[in-house]
Amino acid sequence: MLVTLLTDFGIEDHFVAAMKGVILERAPDVPLVDITHSIPPQDVRAAAFTLLAAYDAFPVPSVHLAVVDPGVGSARRPVVVSAGGRHFVGPDNGLFSYLLDREPGFRARHLNRPSYFRARVSSTFHGRDVFAPVAGSLAAGTPPEALGDEVDELVRLPPLRPGRGDHGGLVAEVVHVDRFGNCVTSLTPDHLPAVDPADGVDLRVGGHRIRRLRRFFAEEAGDPGEPFAIWGSTGFLEIAVNRGSAAQRLGIGRGSPVLVEEPLGPTPPTHSPGRATDHA
Amino acid sequence: MLVTLLTDFGIEDHFVAAMKGVILERAPDVPLVDITHSIPPQDVRAAAFTLLAAYDAFPVPSVHLAVVDPGVGSARRPVVVSAGGRHFVGPDNGLFSYLLDREPGFRARHLNRPSYFRARVSSTFHGRDVFAPVAGSLAAGTPPEALGDEVDELVRLPPLRPGRGDHGGLVAEVVHVDRFGNCVTSLTPDHLPAVDPADGVDLRVGGHRIRRLRRFFAEEAGDPGEPFAIWGSTGFLEIAVNRGSAAQRLGIGRGSPVLVEEPLGPTPPTHSPGRATDHA
Amino acid sequence: MLVTLLTDFGIEDHFVAAMKGVILERAPDVPLVDITHSIPPQDVRAAAFTLLAAYDAFPVPSVHLAVVDPGVGSARRPVVVSAGGRHFVGPDNGLFSYLLDREPGFRARHLNRPSYFRARVSSTFHGRDVFAPVAGSLAAGTPPEALGDEVDELVRLPPLRPGRGDHGGLVAEVVHVDRFGNCVTSLTPDHLPAVDPADGVDLRVGGHRIRRLRRFFAEEAGDPGEPFAIWGSTGFLEIAVNRGSAAQRLGIGRGSPVLVEEPLGPTPPTHSPGRATDHA
Repeated sequence: MLVTLLTDFGIEDHFVAAMKGVILERAPDVPLVDITHSIPPQDVRAAAFTLLAAYDAFPVPSVHLAVVDPGVGSARRPVVVSAGGRHFVGPDNGLFSYLLDREPGFRARHLNRPSYFRARVSSTFHGRDVFAPVAGSLAAGTPPEALGDEVDELVRLPPLRPGRGDHGGLVAEVVHVDRFGNCVTSLTPDHLPAVDPADGVDLRVGGHRIRRLRRFFAEEAGDPGEPFAIWGSTGFLEIAVNRGSAAQRLGIGRGSPVLVEEPLGPTPPTHSPGRATDHA
Repeated sequence: MLVTLLTDFGIEDHFVAAMKGVILERAPDVPLVDITHSIPPQDVRAAAFTLLAAYDAFPVPSVHLAVVDPGVGSARRPVVVSAGGRHFVGPDNGLFSYLLDREPGFRARHLNRPSYFRARVSSTFHGRDVFAPVAGSLAAGTPPEALGDEVDELVRLPPLRPGRGDHGGLVAEVVHVDRFGNCVTSLTPDHLPAVDPADGVDLRVGGHRIRRLRRFFAEEAGDPGEPFAIWGSTGFLEIAVNRGSAAQRLGIGRGSPVLVEEPLGPTPPTHSPGRATDHA
Repeated sequence: MLVTLLTDFGIEDHFVAAMKGVILERAPDVPLVDITHSIPPQDVRAAAFTLLAAYDAFPVPSVHLAVVDPGVGSARRPVVVSAGGRHFVGPDNGLFSYLLDREPGFRARHLNRPSYFRARVSSTFHGRDVFAPVAGSLAAGTPPEALGDEVDELVRLPPLRPGRGDHGGLVAEVVHVDRFGNCVTSLTPDHLPAVDPADGVDLRVGGHRIRRLRRFFAEEAGDPGEPFAIWGSTGFLEIAVNRGSAAQRLGIGRGSPVLVEEPLGPTPPTHSPGRATDHA
């Protein structure tokens, strides 16, 4: 059973390696896959988004270790959450919110059996001392029931979905800017069901109006440097520029509002676009 | 059979991890090795060079997945190229040019059997949906013949070799600057066959003249901070400074011309130094 | 037997991948774990610290390849050092000093049996041509005795420990700044044996006085942005700020002196805080 790792630890220090050593002690032959360690420090929402984007590319069963943990050592609970044939291990601070919005039905357990931890647990590095040994145990076949008592509720972030704006349309936001400068929005096909490439879209973002919907980046349509919308590989609508950075071109970034001029889909529930709770 | 990965995806996003998940679904025990994911976005030539530098350190047989793919979703062909006991998987845009210049004889196939792709193929992430599943299938033992129809020609970049300058000598160029600031040139022993460390070289680069040829970086010869030439580990002549960056010291970078004052080897074919074609 | 890798090679080039290819040729199924490749170029002390921080998270037996090698190609010796059930492979330039200060008793061998090297050994990349094949052989079961002649002494860096200051207290230093800006000092519980969180500490660093000792980062004590001391996960005292960078807040960095106002522990041997020798 493979184990993936997602943290805000960066790759300069020994932190990620130490977690891997502890996992391999318990599950010597398990494949380890880094999702990323470049989550901005303590940014639980960014981690939740990247985990959402990545998790379903992995075969089930799988173990997904996620450690963005500003509350390490405090009363926040360490948990294992099982959903969709996968086990997610990390602090209960909202990290698993977005993927649980897609995976109805989960069981969660409070990791309160220290016999599964490292012999000495530091108060500053539960990634190595609590979460990694638990992930290793799961990968080696330990059932989640053995790891702690069941809990009913988890800390949840507000879902990634647009709200209703004063203008009568939807107000989405940029939830992620990728390495190429593509801006991932919180809009899914549910919000824009009627959109056909020939019809285009009608978005306002960063003072610009986006009308064109491309099927692929290098499509020859419109001006070469023109920003366009495109359905991204994670299922969200993205704002992009071919061979360029839409974020730079439009002067936008994570959190920038994206206005849909006309509500095209069914009216979504009124919900302010994903603000973090106190827990995150 | 191991699989290596080379992309321009960076390590901040989930892209590389998603490809690995798809490979491991098809070949659960295959070792995965990152070559690099720091290729500048859409820079096919840089990717072709790094693949050339890396590939022959791996035992055969092997699978090498390379995805620098500005034309993703367009008519550019996905291919598998088999040469020297290895399989190279990626878009047909010149990525494999430099290594094929060293590996005479190859067979290439157009990846046109969607049954080997992911069930849903996005138009923006063929790395995950086309190339990774094919690489995984190859690593699991699928013969390349099963993956598509044979093709005779591939998009090729101009070879990495110097041209003839107006001054009668060779005009090479800096094809790569490494993490230490060492400047890899397009000069190989074929171009400088008579060079002996005692004789030195006679290069002009960035307005400087380089005469000294060192055998290793810390060799005590000349001034400590003096730039020198050295045969690099990839078989190309490099311009270096001990414990410093030659690129910074000389104010040069990738693409900077390197003039060999006297043609020392056999006259090479007249060829302008590696410009990318339209395809790249 | 797993193999870890620690270098100053960065992740942009093919260097690390080439080493992995060579290891996997000799030990096809061995798990490979990157500790880091972001050591500042030629910074042997930084590498020695990170190796110290990481090594004991890995199960024994294990192979730890460390290549920060400014003397590559010169007379510096390639070595394998066996201690605590582990094998450390790299240049004899002090890289293994700090961990050997913790692992009493070691046996070292000069890697002088070229049959274990790559067939062609470059003078600039012993990581790929000397150290990686030896690491792979060890991982595949070759006993260290086969690899070279025993040596009695290794190049050693001065130990990581504070000296005695003019003020009568200890003078430690910041030996590492991590990705979060936490400043790891050279102070261990041996130097501050009597410290209780309720008592606090009395440190001077960067013109600031640090009195508070927290048990975990998010502890609610003092002002939210107040710098504090905390026992870090590597066993050293750290200077930290909750959800912020202590290095930035205090304007300090690696090498910054940390004064302990009153000597709380037994008098340590008078030793200037870890300066590198000529060898490093």
